[in-house]
Amino acid sequence: MYNYPHNLQKLINEISKLPGIGPKMAERIGLYIIKKDSSYIENIQNALEEIKTLSLCEKCFNVSESGLCNICSDRGRSSSLICVVESPEDIITVERTGKFSGYYHVLQGLINPLNNIMPENLRLKELKKRAAETGIDEIILAINHTVEGDATCLYISNMLKEKQGAVKITRLAKGLPSGSDLKYADEITLGQAILERKEI
Amino acid sequence: MYNYPHNLQKLINEISKLPGIGPKMAERIGLYIIKKDSSYIENIQNALEEIKTLSLCEKCFNVSESGLCNICSDRGRSSSLICVVESPEDIITVERTGKFSGYYHVLQGLINPLNNIMPENLRLKELKKRAAETGIDEIILAINHTVEGDATCLYISNMLKEKQGAVKITRLAKGLPSGSDLKYADEITLGQAILERKEI
Repeated sequence: MYNYPHNLQKLINEISKLPGIGPKMAERIGLYIIKKDSSYIENIQNALEEIKTLSLCEKCFNVSESGLCNICSDRGRSSSLICVVESPEDIITVERTGKFSGYYHVLQGLINPLNNIMPENLRLKELKKRAAETGIDEIILAINHTVEGDATCLYISNMLKEKQGAVKITRLAKGLPSGSDLKYADEITLGQAILERKEI
Repeated sequence: MYNYPHNLQKLINEISKLPGIGPKMAERIGLYIIKKDSSYIENIQNALEEIKTLSLCEKCFNVSESGLCNICSDRGRSSSLICVVESPEDIITVERTGKFSGYYHVLQGLINPLNNIMPENLRLKELKKRAAETGIDEIILAINHTVEGDATCLYISNMLKEKQGAVKITRLAKGLPSGSDLKYADEITLGQAILERKEI
């Protein structure tokens, strides 16, 4: 059976290992790349070379160019607040709102026994240690409202309440999204929005 | 405003230039890659390095490792048939059916004035030359049944009929897909299937 030249097939295989890319899309990307000139390919190669120096922030586990990430090295933020997120992209999302001025803690995943992600695979021990430091008033769990997110939040709240009574643990509000239409809301979200209605 | 470290952002920008990948997905892939160790990154870099030697087949414009592609260098195929396709991936798709044993001709696109792809940007001159060679009986247009595909087929058939009267030009049958359900068929496809019904 006819197939692509060996080296093109190898590139397609590498591309299809990336998350969210199926075999068809990997083919399309591979064929797109070979149509480009070699300076285009070198740009990608260089970009890949440069990220080899990246590591995780030793404090919050965000991606970082040196020991501490840009946020942890910023002394102007409010040090009594820690926002717990699943992954580094969530930091960008929270930062875009402009409503949070504290520091972050990246779990690097959520508890998910089906995918073999257990509490010990996440940065939970480090969170416990940070939460015990003096001056921490509130830990905000900015975690998805999914089964895995709920399990992780429950685990964290049990873990932190064991010792620290004084630290407040909060989770993002559940409700209707801004600009949303009642008739398209699912019943769980709408139910929650009714229970947590606010006087105006 | 907080953003990713400079070199990660650069990689994300490169990834988001690939076809079918939006900014969100590029972010996800970039963050996935930095979590991997450097041997993983080197695999991708090497695969990219190796495809720099690939070029287009000088006869059919399929991707190729040397002057002629694997198919054009195979003398065991039926030389009276040419199958015209839009891109190299279509060759793989046609080959998988096992119903075609001739040679191919890759147009490298379809006529699409809105995207500035005009007949002179495609490998049409070369097709005309190949069609004029002695021994060619039939040219099969394995081109999508879309507006661009229809326009390209019309152009090719006009171009080839100008001079070559003897060459038969055919196009893939339009009809209901195998395993399909009548109630989900669109009216154009169903109408065509009725017009081209076959006695059994």
